[in-house]
Amino acid sequence: MAEEIHEECGVFGIFAPQTQEVARTSYYGLFALQHRGQESAGIVVNRDGVFSSYKDAGLVNDVFTTEILNKLGEGEMAIGHVRYSTTGASGRENAQPIVVNHLKGNMALAHNGNLINAYELRSELENEGSIFHTTSDTEVISYIITKERVKSRSIEDAVVSAMDKLKGAYSLVVMSPTKLIAARDPQGFRPLCYGTREDGAIIVASESCALNAVGAKLVREIQPGEIIVITKEGIKSDTSHCGGKRSLCVFEFFYTARPDSEIDGCFVHDARKRAGAFLAEKYKIDADIVIGVPDSGLDAALGYSQASGIPYGIGFLKNKYIGRTFIAPDQKMREDRVKIKLNVIASAVKGKRVILVDDSIVRGTTSRPIMKQLRDAGAKEIHFLSSAPKFLNPCYYGTDIASRDNLIACRYSEEEIAKIIGADSVGYLDLEHARYLTGGDGTGFCTACFDGVYPTDIPVEVNKSRFERPRSENPKFQK
Amino acid sequence: MAEEIHEECGVFGIFAPQTQEVARTSYYGLFALQHRGQESAGIVVNRDGVFSSYKDAGLVNDVFTTEILNKLGEGEMAIGHVRYSTTGASGRENAQPIVVNHLKGNMALAHNGNLINAYELRSELENEGSIFHTTSDTEVISYIITKERVKSRSIEDAVVSAMDKLKGAYSLVVMSPTKLIAARDPQGFRPLCYGTREDGAIIVASESCALNAVGAKLVREIQPGEIIVITKEGIKSDTSHCGGKRSLCVFEFFYTARPDSEIDGCFVHDARKRAGAFLAEKYKIDADIVIGVPDSGLDAALGYSQASGIPYGIGFLKNKYIGRTFIAPDQKMREDRVKIKLNVIASAVKGKRVILVDDSIVRGTTSRPIMKQLRDAGAKEIHFLSSAPKFLNPCYYGTDIASRDNLIACRYSEEEIAKIIGADSVGYLDLEHARYLTGGDGTGFCTACFDGVYPTDIPVEVNKSRFERPRSENPKFQK
Amino acid sequence: MAEEIHEECGVFGIFAPQTQEVARTSYYGLFALQHRGQESAGIVVNRDGVFSSYKDAGLVNDVFTTEILNKLGEGEMAIGHVRYSTTGASGRENAQPIVVNHLKGNMALAHNGNLINAYELRSELENEGSIFHTTSDTEVISYIITKERVKSRSIEDAVVSAMDKLKGAYSLVVMSPTKLIAARDPQGFRPLCYGTREDGAIIVASESCALNAVGAKLVREIQPGEIIVITKEGIKSDTSHCGGKRSLCVFEFFYTARPDSEIDGCFVHDARKRAGAFLAEKYKIDADIVIGVPDSGLDAALGYSQASGIPYGIGFLKNKYIGRTFIAPDQKMREDRVKIKLNVIASAVKGKRVILVDDSIVRGTTSRPIMKQLRDAGAKEIHFLSSAPKFLNPCYYGTDIASRDNLIACRYSEEEIAKIIGADSVGYLDLEHARYLTGGDGTGFCTACFDGVYPTDIPVEVNKSRFERPRSENPKFQK
Amino acid sequence: MAEEIHEECGVFGIFAPQTQEVARTSYYGLFALQHRGQESAGIVVNRDGVFSSYKDAGLVNDVFTTEILNKLGEGEMAIGHVRYSTTGASGRENAQPIVVNHLKGNMALAHNGNLINAYELRSELENEGSIFHTTSDTEVISYIITKERVKSRSIEDAVVSAMDKLKGAYSLVVMSPTKLIAARDPQGFRPLCYGTREDGAIIVASESCALNAVGAKLVREIQPGEIIVITKEGIKSDTSHCGGKRSLCVFEFFYTARPDSEIDGCFVHDARKRAGAFLAEKYKIDADIVIGVPDSGLDAALGYSQASGIPYGIGFLKNKYIGRTFIAPDQKMREDRVKIKLNVIASAVKGKRVILVDDSIVRGTTSRPIMKQLRDAGAKEIHFLSSAPKFLNPCYYGTDIASRDNLIACRYSEEEIAKIIGADSVGYLDLEHARYLTGGDGTGFCTACFDGVYPTDIPVEVNKSRFERPRSENPKFQK
Repeated sequence: MAEEIHEECGVFGIFAPQTQEVARTSYYGLFALQHRGQESAGIVVNRDGVFSSYKDAGLVNDVFTTEILNKLGEGEMAIGHVRYSTTGASGRENAQPIVVNHLKGNMALAHNGNLINAYELRSELENEGSIFHTTSDTEVISYIITKERVKSRSIEDAVVSAMDKLKGAYSLVVMSPTKLIAARDPQGFRPLCYGTREDGAIIVASESCALNAVGAKLVREIQPGEIIVITKEGIKSDTSHCGGKRSLCVFEFFYTARPDSEIDGCFVHDARKRAGAFLAEKYKIDADIVIGVPDSGLDAALGYSQASGIPYGIGFLKNKYIGRTFIAPDQKMREDRVKIKLNVIASAVKGKRVILVDDSIVRGTTSRPIMKQLRDAGAKEIHFLSSAPKFLNPCYYGTDIASRDNLIACRYSEEEIAKIIGADSVGYLDLEHARYLTGGDGTGFCTACFDGVYPTDIPVEVNKSRFERPRSENPKFQK
Repeated sequence: MAEEIHEECGVFGIFAPQTQEVARTSYYGLFALQHRGQESAGIVVNRDGVFSSYKDAGLVNDVFTTEILNKLGEGEMAIGHVRYSTTGASGRENAQPIVVNHLKGNMALAHNGNLINAYELRSELENEGSIFHTTSDTEVISYIITKERVKSRSIEDAVVSAMDKLKGAYSLVVMSPTKLIAARDPQGFRPLCYGTREDGAIIVASESCALNAVGAKLVREIQPGEIIVITKEGIKSDTSHCGGKRSLCVFEFFYTARPDSEIDGCFVHDARKRAGAFLAEKYKIDADIVIGVPDSGLDAALGYSQASGIPYGIGFLKNKYIGRTFIAPDQKMREDRVKIKLNVIASAVKGKRVILVDDSIVRGTTSRPIMKQLRDAGAKEIHFLSSAPKFLNPCYYGTDIASRDNLIACRYSEEEIAKIIGADSVGYLDLEHARYLTGGDGTGFCTACFDGVYPTDIPVEVNKSRFERPRSENPKFQK
Repeated sequence: MAEEIHEECGVFGIFAPQTQEVARTSYYGLFALQHRGQESAGIVVNRDGVFSSYKDAGLVNDVFTTEILNKLGEGEMAIGHVRYSTTGASGRENAQPIVVNHLKGNMALAHNGNLINAYELRSELENEGSIFHTTSDTEVISYIITKERVKSRSIEDAVVSAMDKLKGAYSLVVMSPTKLIAARDPQGFRPLCYGTREDGAIIVASESCALNAVGAKLVREIQPGEIIVITKEGIKSDTSHCGGKRSLCVFEFFYTARPDSEIDGCFVHDARKRAGAFLAEKYKIDADIVIGVPDSGLDAALGYSQASGIPYGIGFLKNKYIGRTFIAPDQKMREDRVKIKLNVIASAVKGKRVILVDDSIVRGTTSRPIMKQLRDAGAKEIHFLSSAPKFLNPCYYGTDIASRDNLIACRYSEEEIAKIIGADSVGYLDLEHARYLTGGDGTGFCTACFDGVYPTDIPVEVNKSRFERPRSENPKFQK
Repeated sequence: MAEEIHEECGVFGIFAPQTQEVARTSYYGLFALQHRGQESAGIVVNRDGVFSSYKDAGLVNDVFTTEILNKLGEGEMAIGHVRYSTTGASGRENAQPIVVNHLKGNMALAHNGNLINAYELRSELENEGSIFHTTSDTEVISYIITKERVKSRSIEDAVVSAMDKLKGAYSLVVMSPTKLIAARDPQGFRPLCYGTREDGAIIVASESCALNAVGAKLVREIQPGEIIVITKEGIKSDTSHCGGKRSLCVFEFFYTARPDSEIDGCFVHDARKRAGAFLAEKYKIDADIVIGVPDSGLDAALGYSQASGIPYGIGFLKNKYIGRTFIAPDQKMREDRVKIKLNVIASAVKGKRVILVDDSIVRGTTSRPIMKQLRDAGAKEIHFLSSAPKFLNPCYYGTDIASRDNLIACRYSEEEIAKIIGADSVGYLDLEHARYLTGGDGTGFCTACFDGVYPTDIPVEVNKSRFERPRSENPKFQK
């Protein structure tokens, strides 16, 4: 599935009680959030109100060298961002955070999510003579906040006013010369939390795994609609936009978030094991072994095994040396492509009836060669279970999925899919079960990609041609 | 002098009668303008109204690879830019051209010069809620044109209106989906010319050497204050801002421009030879040989030789393998630094009384080791002549000079300077002669750096701290 | 353990029935053997008897680009190598395969293992006036074969004669203009096998996983002492050096080889599960969960779980974005170093009595922070089990281990080690069990690193200073 | 001519009285010798007898970074090399110096020249079982010296004995743990000199310009056949191979060496001016201006001007930004290729009868577009004079020239050549004059490339196929 669905963004911020290596800390924080966006990375350091920034296309590892971290230097605050593009062109130009130099004071901003009214807001701004350098929602948000800033007493007032205009999904980290602000949209589509460290530093991040990575402990989620403002005086919370209907993206639990993260009180690992248990309840299969497709199928496979009593097995070995420069087999060796990255452990499945758990089936092109490998290794039967329900509808809140035409579940029955990918049977998690993944009361989630029930208006059809740049796909190419 | 005074920018534009390799043509054009700016380079290609752009810190050679030129692809128009920063921080972020995506149509803009009211214009814009991504004048100009564009019937009308607001030096190339526009400030501080090629393409460039490099012939200068608009229908000229007092930077002839360029009817090579002849008239020295410091002292040395009858000699060899990665000698070998780059040909100067011509003496730190090398090689006498007058005042129109404190001519007499650098005598071109370099009537030039007579108001003192970013000097670092 | 013990080398060879992409095939083969050596990689292609070669320091991914593979081009044969240095200095110069241009025909050679008489052979050769460019055993082997080649009728005869002189561990792949030869030392210390592909190609490799990666099926092991010669006429086997006492390195099963490889009839995955079962037999611990340290502890943990009935858990998540450019935390963040690479899944271990299985404890420095993470996540008890016996003696056959001084097991009792690393108890596999890992009769293995019983003479103490080059540790530095 | 004839190699060595930055010194020395070889560069540092070495394909600038120089570190001796390949394949593998690790002591060796019996020596060695890693003569010399070393009392005795076997051109620098040795073949084909520095260091180099670059003064040439041995005790000279007929390559003065170098008592600049004067004597042309093609035509043009009284002019400007990454115009723009690198200064030649001096005409492909540029710029007449005689015969001593088929002078008369390249007339230096370039008695030079009189046997036809590696042309590709 990794090649089919793209996570989008991760945000990070640190407010330290004294000047320290905030760039380095952000580096480790972003590294822990790397799974949320592999396209670009950036860090802005604030030292005595002066901002130093560096961002580029590439993984955190590739963008930041020791030399660059040293140049960013020490500071009292920093924010960072990893990104996978959901709107606009890719690349360096669209990397975040965005820095705004302004008479009222500098501002840096990092954003995870997708506005549904970005097009309207942008058109309005352009009609007033504003100019845009990027095609991202984040520049629109920067403008809206800056426009409000001119009229406001403080940066936090500007954020509060701006939130009246922004519609859709956004988890924001905003840095001014003296303040670190974190804000989450009133429906809470995307996660955002904060924690504290023994040295008194306060950390904001998309997922709690980034807090752990820098030695901080999770305090709590930022509430949907909440704005927290961190200054030398401490933390203030503005809840004027709170109280809306919570719509946390359930897909964060199936795929986007890391198993060791805790989101809204539930560990992702536990949610995935529960998905496996639900599958065991629904599909009672007579089999010899349950195996998961690494990495995101493993937890659900273990959950199935424990609920069903069928032994858990280690069926695959992932080649950990696959890097950005790996030369993939060409068409002639297409079947081998998966084989080189994912190796069946033949002795584990030989002569056995296998239950195979993966996080989804998007187009089937990845699943088919996996089935073939298992058969070649001697598996007698293969029952493929998807730990997520059928993916049937587009997401407007930041998850990038192949178009409906490419979604195998939209066009074929389970029996047909089994035939296409070469499994003996195929099963999916029930939509109803999906709501109970976290062990709660079944409310508070956005499940639109599964059931088509959108918690907001749907965006007007964007005049895409304005943003299309057919020859600019290379990530180093700009607008 | 090369290390002391910085040229600033070169602009290039092409309008072709049909789709062709405009990116490649721009590459060669910018390559010919490389001496005007070595800090960053950029090209924007226009194909059927869709813009593709690439820019980065570095030399034209380093920024553009075959792969990148191929990705930029063919088109009907392109503009390009090479830059040395005169205001704001250096680097990638400030690279030009600037591209603006706007409802009224895309625009790309490249600029050579320096506004004297940039700070006022920017403050005004920020107070209206505008956000700036760079610290360059060019973004200010982009905003001013865009603001006018919203109210105007056409892009050229917007440029005409914008010129009412812009004060100072600017030679602009602007590209819209269907038009290529070139504009020069009413005083004509910086050169700008255009030419045509046999295939019907029209080329705009800072200097005529860039026209030659792409096979075009010079038609004429863009007049001070003139706007020319190139479309499929041909060339239109708007002269509504013409008629002001011409103030062409005389320093272009001494140092900035290339000897094979023709500016306002005069070849730079001829101007420099004339400077040498003026020196011969002023300083009648009994010597055996006249040599020039390569490259920019050679023409004047030849002029001196021909006017005086003293034989011309080849006194130096420049090491042509010096590249960006050259590891310069450290403090211990400081004296050797010049020696490695510039080698005296001992047999040419041994036992001789030498007249040495260079383009200037800024701080003396480069001249002193040259004198030492000549003495070590056996020169009996050395008479150092500067082909430019004494550099005494700051330039506000785009030439970046060391502060007055560093200008040796501000603090010492010619005799003292001779002692400091180790020459037997030192001489400078007369200011009066400087006005007659081009063979004209002695009017039409800005000579403020020599005489302090500024042809415009002087800019208010900029609140520099807002733009200062002490740790951002690395060109890859952004604002 | 990954940071403490180093695997050494992997070899690969292909003989194709017609000209084809043998370079690309070798690339995928070496990629599958990457775990055997990460320091350098090389491929030599043979087309119509002409050799093209490329090798450099770095991972297979980094050394070979599409452009380089294309330049190596097609051929009928190729051999490849991945290397971790066991003798001599590191780096590019020591990369393999070695190519010898000679009047009697070119030869290319790749080698896995360690001679015990390399020093004597080299001294002898130098005394005859031979010159060495590298410090590796492989150049010694090249010389010995070449010296024999001058006197022999064929390359295979030269290999047979050379084997009379070579002592110690070696698995060789040798390529002449028309032949591919594979040879294994008479004791069979290091694995070597061959397989066939449907298109008729014959593949030789250190492990069967490399055969699978290129679509070949395992035929059989090369026997200890056997030489196989592959030509257009087919495969010939020379067994004149066979019949010695088999001494396969048992450590290949614990650590070096990949779980999906089959060595001498046993899958590594099964051997590791059996190790876990032996541990369950020896250590009957009252616990709630069994977890393994990824990647090499997982199989044994599963084996323990199945034998004991204690549930298997997924206790850790490895960060898969760690790459060569990762900036490791400095001393101040030392404790965090492990945390960033390996993340505890808190919900799996909270409040539980945990059995933790890893492949070994070498110095304890890696184990201690893992214990701390588990405690911080709420583990009530931690029982650490090493799936390998205590590592007590140096290896002279190609496995690079820290000196005895650094081996924690040499200096402390199990109770002391538990205290040092912060576990409630520590246990090791019994040496007796180690011999039965593969399910056989307990004979045929070298277990010298555990019991000190060496199957050969021990090498004379090498005059190390001759090969020491203290400032040449950078892999790009040569000899 | 730069694209047609290739210089070959430059050697450098330093022996310092105490530990110092010998790597850095070698860097600057090699940088000054860069014109002798642009393909690869290498330095070996000797500290207390331990050698550290680094070499790679590329310019000195590109191969050596500050980091690498720091790693090479300080020492008491170092040798260095720049190379253009004359035999064998190009690239990294063939880079020098060669380092030999041997029981009798390490040795490093750098070589400029070409043996005429390399093939015989190599075959002999291979028949004794020697193996070769490179295809260069230098490895043959290393072997010959090492073979002698085994039998000799000292390294210098080994060099003396080796010189009995080596035939052809060689200027060698050899470093042992305690000695620096410089040796020149008995005919003295290639230059080699030494000098001293105030700190007591002794420097050996191919040309005196490298001595100047590191602050040393030329002492004298190494005599043909002389071996000098530098130790802590001082300099010893062995003249046992002296006394042969001197055959210094005259082409060093025309083209290979740098104008500021002094070779065998004559400055190259003076020799070139003398060539211009000889031309003026032979060709009395009625013209308005004499210009040279930069860089190597300038000195001779000045010599012509001074001898004839016709004014010297600066006719061209070279673009100094051409670097390794420059994207040359493709076929369509072929005519423009020269134009981009070399720009006519139109105002210097317009309406004039021009005498143009270049160092040679090899194929005419470079000269033709230069003529066209001059015509386009308005030159009325162009008389092309070659400062070297006609190049008619291959060189076996280290200068790499296009085959006879490509030499325009072999196939056409001067009138025909004038027509082909577009000149009004073409002239060449007389062969007789060439012998008197240095102001001597006309003896002591090898002029074989002009007159076909070879001072040694000609090498037997090499079985080239053994060394041909058609797909290995990329400099990074090895053997």
